[in-house]
Amino acid sequence: MLARVTQSVRAAAWARALSVAVAEAVPGERKVAVEFDDGFAAQYDYAWLRDNCMCDACMDAASGQKNMCAYDYNAPALEVTNVRPGAALEVAWAPTPLPPWLGGRSNAALASSYPPMGMVVDEASPDGWSIAAHTSRLDAEWLYEHAYAPPPPPAVCHEPPTTTWNAADLAAAGGVVELDYASYLDSDDVLYDALSSLSDRGLIMLKNVPAERGPVEAVAQRIAYIKETMYGRLFDVESTPEAANVANTSISLAPHMDLCYYESPPGLQLLHAITTEATGGVSGFVDGFRVLEDLRAAAPDAVELLSSVPLTFHYRRDGQFMRFRRPLIEAASHNEPVAFNWSPQFEGPPRLDLRTASAKPDFELNADAFYSAYGLFAAMVRDPAYLYEFRMESGDMVVFLNRRVLHARTEFDAASGPRLLQGTYVNMDDFRSKLRAMKLARTTLGES
Amino acid sequence: MLARVTQSVRAAAWARALSVAVAEAVPGERKVAVEFDDGFAAQYDYAWLRDNCMCDACMDAASGQKNMCAYDYNAPALEVTNVRPGAALEVAWAPTPLPPWLGGRSNAALASSYPPMGMVVDEASPDGWSIAAHTSRLDAEWLYEHAYAPPPPPAVCHEPPTTTWNAADLAAAGGVVELDYASYLDSDDVLYDALSSLSDRGLIMLKNVPAERGPVEAVAQRIAYIKETMYGRLFDVESTPEAANVANTSISLAPHMDLCYYESPPGLQLLHAITTEATGGVSGFVDGFRVLEDLRAAAPDAVELLSSVPLTFHYRRDGQFMRFRRPLIEAASHNEPVAFNWSPQFEGPPRLDLRTASAKPDFELNADAFYSAYGLFAAMVRDPAYLYEFRMESGDMVVFLNRRVLHARTEFDAASGPRLLQGTYVNMDDFRSKLRAMKLARTTLGES
Repeated sequence: MLARVTQSVRAAAWARALSVAVAEAVPGERKVAVEFDDGFAAQYDYAWLRDNCMCDACMDAASGQKNMCAYDYNAPALEVTNVRPGAALEVAWAPTPLPPWLGGRSNAALASSYPPMGMVVDEASPDGWSIAAHTSRLDAEWLYEHAYAPPPPPAVCHEPPTTTWNAADLAAAGGVVELDYASYLDSDDVLYDALSSLSDRGLIMLKNVPAERGPVEAVAQRIAYIKETMYGRLFDVESTPEAANVANTSISLAPHMDLCYYESPPGLQLLHAITTEATGGVSGFVDGFRVLEDLRAAAPDAVELLSSVPLTFHYRRDGQFMRFRRPLIEAASHNEPVAFNWSPQFEGPPRLDLRTASAKPDFELNADAFYSAYGLFAAMVRDPAYLYEFRMESGDMVVFLNRRVLHARTEFDAASGPRLLQGTYVNMDDFRSKLRAMKLARTTLGES
Repeated sequence: MLARVTQSVRAAAWARALSVAVAEAVPGERKVAVEFDDGFAAQYDYAWLRDNCMCDACMDAASGQKNMCAYDYNAPALEVTNVRPGAALEVAWAPTPLPPWLGGRSNAALASSYPPMGMVVDEASPDGWSIAAHTSRLDAEWLYEHAYAPPPPPAVCHEPPTTTWNAADLAAAGGVVELDYASYLDSDDVLYDALSSLSDRGLIMLKNVPAERGPVEAVAQRIAYIKETMYGRLFDVESTPEAANVANTSISLAPHMDLCYYESPPGLQLLHAITTEATGGVSGFVDGFRVLEDLRAAAPDAVELLSSVPLTFHYRRDGQFMRFRRPLIEAASHNEPVAFNWSPQFEGPPRLDLRTASAKPDFELNADAFYSAYGLFAAMVRDPAYLYEFRMESGDMVVFLNRRVLHARTEFDAASGPRLLQGTYVNMDDFRSKLRAMKLARTTLGES
């Protein structure tokens, strides 16, 4: 069965504009208590409200960027003189002395080319200056979305769903989602469906792609600019003598991801089959997130081992010396649900003497146990239960999340006929940005 | 005084080829004890030695990439039958049963398209298979470099030095290192000096650059391909009406870094002054690493606050919705000595309800204290004691580490004359790769 990890349900309430029904300062806690007209109640710190002021002085109207920051006001001295509910919450602040980091005119920062925005001459103040009174304005919907104490109701969880799969699941669901190349290029709705599927399952297939070099560029540029790498903007995958990279031999390539020696490995990979006349060369894909889920359930000790020791990913030839150290498994961050790094062929020695930031203080390494955990992970990603295999035909293009869905191919016989794929990459940042922006344009309210 | 944080001293011993003088298996510890001919002694785990075998079967001779990994042998069952010292260490391994993750022929992985490399039919084994005997070979110099128990002597610390500075230090050192544009393009030695200075001080200046669009591309491409971003491959900085970005207004820009909403913000930024006839617009640069050092010494509580709460960096307009959450200060990783993220104008609300992975379990947030720490950091980066200011003239190009050296400019009068800069970016990965590779080509031994 397909496992739905997160859900994206939009409550009916979002269809109408929200407003702040009740707002009250709570000076003892230095917070403002707010109740929205749908009943949701939250509290916001004085300093946070001042920091996120959306008035024309604090936020550049043309660019939406902030003109001020905590430098420009005195957070611990903020006092509220008035609050007003409505479509925007308004909070009036009393004048304050200069903040401690600027205390006294002797402080060198006052002579800076970049003095605080709100600083005014005030002869009544001991140092002759103060921060002016100000009224902050924060849009009610934005405030609702960005509530943090407590966070907004689950309906505001806008992150797209992630449906993990193994080979049987994907087969039962009808296999890889297929979309027509020309429709993808022409229709924003098809593009949105493609990006949504990609985000959900990690893999889509475009059909009827012209059998020539170039279409990967057009497909990528519907999403964003191309992520150039040391392999160029576009790259060929073809068997060549004395290949600088194993991808350009005819040997089998077990499931792996590309470019783990970059700080930000590509989010998307595109691979277009121009010619696949050679015998062999069956493609395989593995949902690494499902492997991780199952490993976590079956062997939590292995997960701990593989999270605690940094591996060394590198590429060291032809005037290049790329290197990045990261563990095989990384904990969820505030940007990605989970992460792992799997590209054994580009590994140097793991750093058995180092520990990751997430390693427990009492973690003690046993080298045999570490390598056994590594072997177990490697066996799982090769297990036919996870490996979804098919032969790419001329005119097929796969697009997949390089950091989630591992790709593989069996050996092919280079003498039996030509085999040429063309590929390219897109940044994870730009893919997520495009999907968020398209989703936002199709719904009422932005993501938190 | 300039503070030298790390040193790169190359011991005389490196001038000659190293070899393994003595090697002995220690079966009770499952390690091989090695003594090199310069007297350095280290131990290596059986599994690590097997993993890093450099023989033609285990490592692709043409690409230097690994053909095998822990999947392909049985780490906990490894036994040594012979070791031999010399220019390469040789370790002979006995045959082993199949590893536990493949135990029994019933295991589905044996039916995989990607079976273990070393698996051989063995009728004497209970499941009919075993992993063949093997002799591993590891070059002595490589082994020395990559020792981990203990690590090699300090002479093998090959990371380039980092000399932090404040405004007085940089002035006392003669200001920003200046190099001639044409020499930089023509001479590899000048290029190497430029990259070394950049790595050390974070900022260099190229002089005598033609006053036209384009030279940033040539300068970047001496290092690597250009890092394209949502602003394009190259970008102009010029005052425009209704600017989508504050950089394209004439207002002052306090010290900041660019593109903190990317997972991997640019490592290098290049800014070329084509025309600076407008009044005002003085450039300023701040070594953020020095600010961090001083903040850590003066206000460790502020460092803890700013390390524990993720900020939200975003760009949300024109079909883009970039977002990345990261704290202001990040602990040293195994890739970067330290990191910080400072781009207040592109911040959304900090996530006061979330904690970073490095936050102490008992960390409790006080919003006023957090914003005060933020204000203190902001005041320090604007303090004239750190801010090194000068006016860029037509024909000047600064190249700086975007993630270390903050850049700023004072307001200029757009009506008083034209002001046009052109800029571009290079990945941190590619910059470090180029410098490592150039250093390697100029010294005897590679970096660990």
